[in-house]
Amino acid sequence: MAKRVLRTKLCDMLGIDYPILSAGMGPTLIGERTGAPVELVVAVSEAGGLGVLGGSGFTVEELRDAIREIKKLTDKPFGVDLLLPKNLDLGGGLGQKGPEQLPLSLVLKSIPKPHQEWIAKVREELGLPQTEIMVRMNTTTMRPQEAVQVCLDEKVPLFCAGLGNPGFMVPEAHARGMKVLGITGNAKNARRMAQSGVDLLVAQGHEGGGHTGRIGTMALLPQAIDAAHPVPVLAAGGIGDGRGVAAALAMGCVGVWVGTRFLATEEGGALPVNKQRILDSTDEDTRVSRAYTGKTLRASYNKFHDLWDSSGLEPLAFPTQVLISSALLAAFIEANKTEFVGGLAGQISGLIKEIKPARQVLEEMVEEAVDILTRRLPETVVAR
Amino acid sequence: MAKRVLRTKLCDMLGIDYPILSAGMGPTLIGERTGAPVELVVAVSEAGGLGVLGGSGFTVEELRDAIREIKKLTDKPFGVDLLLPKNLDLGGGLGQKGPEQLPLSLVLKSIPKPHQEWIAKVREELGLPQTEIMVRMNTTTMRPQEAVQVCLDEKVPLFCAGLGNPGFMVPEAHARGMKVLGITGNAKNARRMAQSGVDLLVAQGHEGGGHTGRIGTMALLPQAIDAAHPVPVLAAGGIGDGRGVAAALAMGCVGVWVGTRFLATEEGGALPVNKQRILDSTDEDTRVSRAYTGKTLRASYNKFHDLWDSSGLEPLAFPTQVLISSALLAAFIEANKTEFVGGLAGQISGLIKEIKPARQVLEEMVEEAVDILTRRLPETVVAR
Repeated sequence: MAKRVLRTKLCDMLGIDYPILSAGMGPTLIGERTGAPVELVVAVSEAGGLGVLGGSGFTVEELRDAIREIKKLTDKPFGVDLLLPKNLDLGGGLGQKGPEQLPLSLVLKSIPKPHQEWIAKVREELGLPQTEIMVRMNTTTMRPQEAVQVCLDEKVPLFCAGLGNPGFMVPEAHARGMKVLGITGNAKNARRMAQSGVDLLVAQGHEGGGHTGRIGTMALLPQAIDAAHPVPVLAAGGIGDGRGVAAALAMGCVGVWVGTRFLATEEGGALPVNKQRILDSTDEDTRVSRAYTGKTLRASYNKFHDLWDSSGLEPLAFPTQVLISSALLAAFIEANKTEFVGGLAGQISGLIKEIKPARQVLEEMVEEAVDILTRRLPETVVAR
Repeated sequence: MAKRVLRTKLCDMLGIDYPILSAGMGPTLIGERTGAPVELVVAVSEAGGLGVLGGSGFTVEELRDAIREIKKLTDKPFGVDLLLPKNLDLGGGLGQKGPEQLPLSLVLKSIPKPHQEWIAKVREELGLPQTEIMVRMNTTTMRPQEAVQVCLDEKVPLFCAGLGNPGFMVPEAHARGMKVLGITGNAKNARRMAQSGVDLLVAQGHEGGGHTGRIGTMALLPQAIDAAHPVPVLAAGGIGDGRGVAAALAMGCVGVWVGTRFLATEEGGALPVNKQRILDSTDEDTRVSRAYTGKTLRASYNKFHDLWDSSGLEPLAFPTQVLISSALLAAFIEANKTEFVGGLAGQISGLIKEIKPARQVLEEMVEEAVDILTRRLPETVVAR
C-alpha cells in the first residue's frame, strides 16, 4: 500500500506521523507481561503512531529499565502511563519501606474476614489449587513520587496519567521538553485538568476497557472538547478501526487513544486466553464491575463476574480488591478454568476478528481513515 | 445564513433535504403533550429534516387524528413511531375490550401488595396529595394491530418501531409506498432486523435518553453498520450538534436520529420542569433505571431515582411499572416537589444550554456539520 498521510496538530506537538496513540494499559492482573509492554510501545511508535507504556505494574527500577529498553529499540517518541493517586503524600510511608514483596496468602490475612472466607469457599467448591503468588509492595502505583521522578529523569517524551491529575508536574516536565497528558471520563474533570496546565487530554467514554466512566464516547467528546478548550482532546472508548478515527477527527479531536485493538495484537500484553476472548466477543460481551480492582472496570464478560455478584460482598477499596481477584484468577488459570477468566477490554471487542502485528493494525486504521476522509465522505455526503 | 446543502442517500430515500430525523419519542409519563408531538414533527419536517411522531401514548383514534393533523400542516414527509411488543397476538384481548380508561387508584389495586404499600408510605412521608389520574387502557401500545393498520391506511411515509421488529409489516408498507425503520441497541438485533427486510435501522447507543441499551454509540455504530449491511444505519445517542452529525457521517451512517436536543426545543413535548432540568444538566446528570417503566430507561437524574433505589423493591414488568412511577410523579408535580421530577433525556443534555425553535436547532446542526466537512476537517486534518 502506498504510504498514506494523516496529520493533525497532534503530530506536530508530539513529532509523530499519525495521530494515533496506543493506550497506556496497565498490567493484566495475572501474568508477567503487561497490557502495553515495551514490545507494543516500540511497535506502535516505529509504525508512526505513539506507543504508551503501561507503567503501573512495574517496580520503580523496572520502570526505569523498561524506559531505557524502549530508547534502545526506537528513537521515536513514546509515552509512559502511571496511575497517580489524588494525593501524592501517601503518609505512613506506604510503598516506601518494608519488604519489597510478600506472599499473597500472607497479605490476604489483612483483608476482612468475610472476604477471606469467601475466597476459601470458592476455592473449595470449585476445587481450585492453593496457588501461591508474590505480591509486589513496591510498584510505581505505591511509589508515585519516585516513579514520576524516573519519568522526569528519563525525559519521557509524553507523560500520561491514567488516574489522577498530572498538573502538578507540568512545569518540571516542560522544563525537560516533555509533554503531559491527562485522562478524563467527564467534562468537569476535563475542565479541571485543562486548567491545571496539561498539554493534552484523553476523553474516554463508557465503552472503553479497563477503568472507565459513565459517559458514552459520542456524548462525552463534544462536552469534553468544550470544557477543555483550548487544550486539545484525544478520543478514547469504542475506537477499533479507521471509522472511529475519522469520526473522532470529525468531532474535533486531534487524535485517538486506542486500547483494546492494540491489546489484541501480536505485541499486545494480554494473556492468550484474554486475546482469544476478545476475538470471540460480540459488542455485548464485556461487563463493568468493581470485582477486579474496587473501581468500576470493564472487562471481557466471564463467570468471575457472576461469581462475584453472587457473593453478596462489597468490593474492597481500590486497589485492595485486586488481591482478591488476583488470588482467584491465578488459581483459575492454574486449574485451566478459563471460563472464569477475562481480561480488560472495551465494547469494541466485537469488531476485532484477528490478532495482527501492531504495525498492521495502525496502518490499516490510517488507510481506512484516509480513505473515508478523501473518498468515502465526499462520495456519500454532499456538503456545501 | 446562506442555505446549506447536506445530503446523503437517506435524503433520496425519504425525499428530504437533510439527513436528520427527530426521534419518535413516546409520551412523557405525566402531561398531556408527548415527547415528540405534532408541533415538533411539523417543525422538523418543514425545516427539511424528518419529524417522527411519538405515537405510543395516543389512543388509536388520537393517532389517526394526529397523523391527519400533520398532513394538514405540512406536505413534507414525516414518520410515526410505535412500540410493538415482540408478539402481536396479545391474547386475552388486552387493549381490545373493556373500559377505555380507569382511575389509577383502581388499577393500582392489581399490582403486588408490597408495591402498593410502598406508594402509600411515600405519599404519607412526603405529604403528597391523593392525586387522581385516569389510566388509558386503549393506547396504541396495547392495540398494536389497530395502530399499525392506521399507519398503513394513512400511508405514513416512514413507519418506525421504537420497540420490537417491524419486519412483519414491510411488504404491506412497501405496497403503499412507505418505508420502515427499526431501532436497535446491539449488533445482533441489527442483523436480525436487517434480514427481516426493514429499509433503515437506527443504532442507538447507551448514552441516549429513554429506553436504551448497553453499548456506547461509538462502539455500536461500526458493529451495527457491519451487521446490518447493506441496510443503511442512522446514528442515535449522544448527538446534540453538528459535530455529532459529522462524526456519524464519517463513521458511515446515512443520517442521525436526534432525541434530547429536539425534546428541549420550543415545540418539544417535555414538561417545562423537564426542559429546565436538561438545561441545568451536565454530562453526568442522567441515570439509567428500571424505576420508570420496568425496562432500563435513561432520564434526567432526580430524587425519584434514589427514592426507588431505597425501596428495595423489584420493578414490575414493562409497562406495568409505569403505573407506579406515574402515580407518584403526578403527585410530585401537584405538590410542586420538582426535585423528584426528571424526564427522559440522554447524556448529551450537558451540551444543551438554550430552548430554541426546532427549525433553528436543525439549521444550526446542518450549518455546523457542513462547516466541519467543508472547512474545519480540511484545515485541521491533512489526509491523502
